[in-house]
Amino acid sequence: MRILIVNPNTTASMTAKLAAVARRVAAVGTEIVAVNPSYGPASIEGYYDEAFAAPGLLELIAKAPDFDGYVIGCFDDTGLDAARALAAAPVVGIGEAAFHAASLIAGKFSVVTTLARSVAAIEHNLVRYGFAARCAKVRASDVAVLELEEKGSGARAKLSAEIARALAEDGCEAIVLGCAGMADLANSLAQEHDAPIVDGAAAAVKFCEALAALGLKTAKRGGYATPQAKTYAGEFGRHSP
Amino acid sequence: MRILIVNPNTTASMTAKLAAVARRVAAVGTEIVAVNPSYGPASIEGYYDEAFAAPGLLELIAKAPDFDGYVIGCFDDTGLDAARALAAAPVVGIGEAAFHAASLIAGKFSVVTTLARSVAAIEHNLVRYGFAARCAKVRASDVAVLELEEKGSGARAKLSAEIARALAEDGCEAIVLGCAGMADLANSLAQEHDAPIVDGAAAAVKFCEALAALGLKTAKRGGYATPQAKTYAGEFGRHSP
Amino acid sequence: MRILIVNPNTTASMTAKLAAVARRVAAVGTEIVAVNPSYGPASIEGYYDEAFAAPGLLELIAKAPDFDGYVIGCFDDTGLDAARALAAAPVVGIGEAAFHAASLIAGKFSVVTTLARSVAAIEHNLVRYGFAARCAKVRASDVAVLELEEKGSGARAKLSAEIARALAEDGCEAIVLGCAGMADLANSLAQEHDAPIVDGAAAAVKFCEALAALGLKTAKRGGYATPQAKTYAGEFGRHSP
Amino acid sequence: MRILIVNPNTTASMTAKLAAVARRVAAVGTEIVAVNPSYGPASIEGYYDEAFAAPGLLELIAKAPDFDGYVIGCFDDTGLDAARALAAAPVVGIGEAAFHAASLIAGKFSVVTTLARSVAAIEHNLVRYGFAARCAKVRASDVAVLELEEKGSGARAKLSAEIARALAEDGCEAIVLGCAGMADLANSLAQEHDAPIVDGAAAAVKFCEALAALGLKTAKRGGYATPQAKTYAGEFGRHSP
Amino acid sequence: MRILIVNPNTTASMTAKLAAVARRVAAVGTEIVAVNPSYGPASIEGYYDEAFAAPGLLELIAKAPDFDGYVIGCFDDTGLDAARALAAAPVVGIGEAAFHAASLIAGKFSVVTTLARSVAAIEHNLVRYGFAARCAKVRASDVAVLELEEKGSGARAKLSAEIARALAEDGCEAIVLGCAGMADLANSLAQEHDAPIVDGAAAAVKFCEALAALGLKTAKRGGYATPQAKTYAGEFGRHSP
Amino acid sequence: MRILIVNPNTTASMTAKLAAVARRVAAVGTEIVAVNPSYGPASIEGYYDEAFAAPGLLELIAKAPDFDGYVIGCFDDTGLDAARALAAAPVVGIGEAAFHAASLIAGKFSVVTTLARSVAAIEHNLVRYGFAARCAKVRASDVAVLELEEKGSGARAKLSAEIARALAEDGCEAIVLGCAGMADLANSLAQEHDAPIVDGAAAAVKFCEALAALGLKTAKRGGYATPQAKTYAGEFGRHSP
Repeated sequence: MRILIVNPNTTASMTAKLAAVARRVAAVGTEIVAVNPSYGPASIEGYYDEAFAAPGLLELIAKAPDFDGYVIGCFDDTGLDAARALAAAPVVGIGEAAFHAASLIAGKFSVVTTLARSVAAIEHNLVRYGFAARCAKVRASDVAVLELEEKGSGARAKLSAEIARALAEDGCEAIVLGCAGMADLANSLAQEHDAPIVDGAAAAVKFCEALAALGLKTAKRGGYATPQAKTYAGEFGRHSP
Repeated sequence: MRILIVNPNTTASMTAKLAAVARRVAAVGTEIVAVNPSYGPASIEGYYDEAFAAPGLLELIAKAPDFDGYVIGCFDDTGLDAARALAAAPVVGIGEAAFHAASLIAGKFSVVTTLARSVAAIEHNLVRYGFAARCAKVRASDVAVLELEEKGSGARAKLSAEIARALAEDGCEAIVLGCAGMADLANSLAQEHDAPIVDGAAAAVKFCEALAALGLKTAKRGGYATPQAKTYAGEFGRHSP
Repeated sequence: MRILIVNPNTTASMTAKLAAVARRVAAVGTEIVAVNPSYGPASIEGYYDEAFAAPGLLELIAKAPDFDGYVIGCFDDTGLDAARALAAAPVVGIGEAAFHAASLIAGKFSVVTTLARSVAAIEHNLVRYGFAARCAKVRASDVAVLELEEKGSGARAKLSAEIARALAEDGCEAIVLGCAGMADLANSLAQEHDAPIVDGAAAAVKFCEALAALGLKTAKRGGYATPQAKTYAGEFGRHSP
Repeated sequence: MRILIVNPNTTASMTAKLAAVARRVAAVGTEIVAVNPSYGPASIEGYYDEAFAAPGLLELIAKAPDFDGYVIGCFDDTGLDAARALAAAPVVGIGEAAFHAASLIAGKFSVVTTLARSVAAIEHNLVRYGFAARCAKVRASDVAVLELEEKGSGARAKLSAEIARALAEDGCEAIVLGCAGMADLANSLAQEHDAPIVDGAAAAVKFCEALAALGLKTAKRGGYATPQAKTYAGEFGRHSP
Repeated sequence: MRILIVNPNTTASMTAKLAAVARRVAAVGTEIVAVNPSYGPASIEGYYDEAFAAPGLLELIAKAPDFDGYVIGCFDDTGLDAARALAAAPVVGIGEAAFHAASLIAGKFSVVTTLARSVAAIEHNLVRYGFAARCAKVRASDVAVLELEEKGSGARAKLSAEIARALAEDGCEAIVLGCAGMADLANSLAQEHDAPIVDGAAAAVKFCEALAALGLKTAKRGGYATPQAKTYAGEFGRHSP
Repeated sequence: MRILIVNPNTTASMTAKLAAVARRVAAVGTEIVAVNPSYGPASIEGYYDEAFAAPGLLELIAKAPDFDGYVIGCFDDTGLDAARALAAAPVVGIGEAAFHAASLIAGKFSVVTTLARSVAAIEHNLVRYGFAARCAKVRASDVAVLELEEKGSGARAKLSAEIARALAEDGCEAIVLGCAGMADLANSLAQEHDAPIVDGAAAAVKFCEALAALGLKTAKRGGYATPQAKTYAGEFGRHSP
């Protein structure tokens, strides 16, 4: 089985981190390929960045039609719906994967993400997916995405402090890490706080494997129908379905 | 007051139609400018098209920072959240405008849109905005967007038949037309069916005027905070905030 | 265009304040007429007052059938449903207008109203209209309605302090002022707190203008059907439909 | 124990019917007094009628402060919130009583009411009270309220046919009769359809008895706080709290 | 009328307390019989205890088919759905009874229960029944169920302190006591806090009397249909329907 | 990795079917053990059967503490919450697994289950888990559970016909099979209807593997806390935690 992980931002160190996390949990026989676009935002922190990350993400999926599953490596699930319309194989976002995993092991979870500006998009996804009542609170840790890539930035300490507050105040039973860049911290934070800490990147890989093994593909009647052939003008002509 | 209407697809006849509808309802002293991107999909029918329409839309807004308000001329409210983060002045989508207007004149409304593939995105928006319980049903009329631009396509008849079914079966009190390309049909359909028929394009112009006159601008604490300066790589470098 | 603003309480200074706010935002060519009943409560603070304010409000609307739109000048939207059934032209409540306006410029808003006893009715309206998930919190400032009419009452300071708490604690992005008597304070409070402060009275005027310009009237199939002719006994005989 | 049933319309035959139904189910030792206002609408069919029924209803409650409980004898629960603020003893509406009773004996129920114009107000109450997900459908039987008082009107047959449709199509397990004037038909309809048929008038009497026996009174912190003393002008001066 | 109260745990002192509370509020002519299983958990604190309490509860109901109503004497409403399927007469749980009673006298209530582990089951019930939006918060008082049976355990003081916090912080108007073992404390706590304190055990008895007097029985089309005859193997053979 | 599948009914042919389905999808290195209780109902069709299936299910899990994950092989997710409190390793119900899988590949799904009496419990689970808005409809096919075990019963044809109706009428994009006994039919039905058909048994095995591989265990703060040591009287003494 081959799974393509697309990091929709252009920061290669995050792509490498996603690949490492994925390979750690992948089943025997699962090949992990991790890529990122050559154009677009260096990190995704809010709706504007999302809009410019989606085309590169979709292009990478379009160019790799033979994979058995696709993982979108941004907690916002950037471009997830469009990717599902495009791909034949299942597509799983790391945000939704984390919510599904947390819901299978806890009554309520809290999300700890990066900046306050990212909270709204996560809350929107929770509402749309159906997890709003399962999520106690979405919290910002005031850590920028790229700080997670810098040694000595103090990012882990800020994140850990916010997790402690969530467990003390929210009535939550598990924590979801709200950024792909936090994937490598899940295990040590789980030990530190003696609570389940869910990393969506690892979860998305396993759920993608699961769907592929089950022979399930995205439904093509409704919103995920294959895009209709039509003219795309100008510089986006090459993306025409 | 100057309002910029951005049709996020590249079909100039739809842009012209939006401009005409807008000028018909605009207040004395409101200048309407209507534009569309030079690149991207010719029509927006589903999530994939949306993803490739958003960059062009945002570029047009970024290049026109001095307007008093912006209208997004697609019923999916393509790129609305990103546009709000980008612009200083208010931004109104024609989908949301139609839902707001219908909610002010009816207890429940139904939406009649183009193709079945467009229903899911509209339902998602209704849930996110808070209008899910106000909408009786989202219906597809099986009319493609560009058929609305072709004389003799039979589009109006199909649309009218679906409106009749909605009024008979849904328990709705008003109808929302679910595509920008239907804007010119609202008045005649309202007379034909003796029921309020809401065209979001005209509504968006009036609500945009209203917000501007009230001196209200998009809140900048939270999800609509101004995009952070950061590197955008490659061909999207010019869109870097 | 002529818009009738009905203040459903009997306090003429509030009626005058509403008229002034309305004229400040009305479009060129919009004539504002503001009235209040000669009988009923001097202010509306809770359900009991509402019940005795509605008849006078409805009588004023019934006597003025030729207006192009009606604004109900109480944040509880007193009698709104009955007024919609009665009037041919659109009717907009200042509470709902504020919620609509806030939803067009912010992901989440908080409401700051007068007394604790008024919170429940506002929360009920938010649920019914569909805005419950858009409203972070409804807060009481412990200012009585008529204190807002008295110089030196300290009302503005209490209100401002509650707004500051809302912005600090609620995760809201904008503030809705929860009483018609606060209409004149919106602009200075917005500057003080550097956040959008929505006054429903001004918003209702603009939305009323918008609906009238769009040619939209209240739907008459369903709950807003014109009242059936029937006998009203005794002192209410004159209100018989 | 003494319970006051207030029929908020002026039709004495309905008041007598309510009294008869109440006495049939009242406990030994419960005295039933049934009254109606001398002024206001002859029947309540929509929001406008409600607004003119509430003052008379509240006046009757205000004049009878020594009762152990109050029942509001209209399925719309006309004036319920205001009556709760006014009265010391518990107040139960027949609409809410029916919803509570049906929820205690069935997973889902449908409501069969009179005219289409009454559906919206019932749906609003279901949403506000929390019963929206327990109600499969609110159906109109196209029977006017006063037809229920006329022999030979065919009202019972129309009602029975609509009940049959509800049981066949809605997935409901019990039926709520959606008008006070149907109270005398519940038993025979239950036998005819072999399903629980809930009459809210009888239910309200029993729940009112129950609350009184439990020593529970309406909470007075929040929306049901006792109305504040204040000036009521003109012809409503006598209603001033 | 004869009502069977089944305490689903095996602690006879709690059964006796339930009987005493029930007899205090029962109508003249209502005979109260209170029983508990001879096998199963001594108290119910969480889902595992619930699962082993249900068989004994159901066996006691099956053996007593001639009662006019049944009360399940655990705040979790242990086995309520199964009991409804089994019994011909109405079945009322003390948790649901408390929620219904509180909803009839207050806009919002908070629940104060025993241990944190019991909160989730109560929240689940609130969601299922439809009361989620009526409940401000479910709070644990950190009192174990059997502490309520021990003099000098300090249980009442802890409970009272949590009630005070609920009234101060939750915006609730009434308090629901979240354990059958608290039934005898409701009156004194109500006086102490000057707020309605709802004991579900007493409420369930009165609602059970009410349903029986109304002639209402559990609907038998749908989830509460009488269990189908089928083989139960082994030690549960005697429970076969 | 070792996964224990517990069929909570006593029908060995269903247990064998579950084992076969599980082994078909299990990863290399996953050992599947499938068991059923020796006492309790032969099939689970409604709440009463569920109550008598849970003890045997829990006993089997308690006796097998060393597994890496547990699957509950009934679509009702019988005893799921209690099993989570009991077990250290993750526990997945086949109902919830199917809902999660369907949500990852479709916007909306319908459930096709056995008898009408089973619909309510499934709807309750959908509400509790958060999937209510993702499920278009829960449909009964009028096939008894044990008919699925009998050749020549016509069960598959009835099921297929109901799936066809769901796809035609519900606006759903995928189908969830609502009974463990349907597990072997998923693939052929998917081909027949050209739509994703989700079998929860296979899905639960894969999600259980996924959670175990991720190192995630059920959260133990809150409703799933390990049962407290306490006395269980009589014949249930051996189940005492």
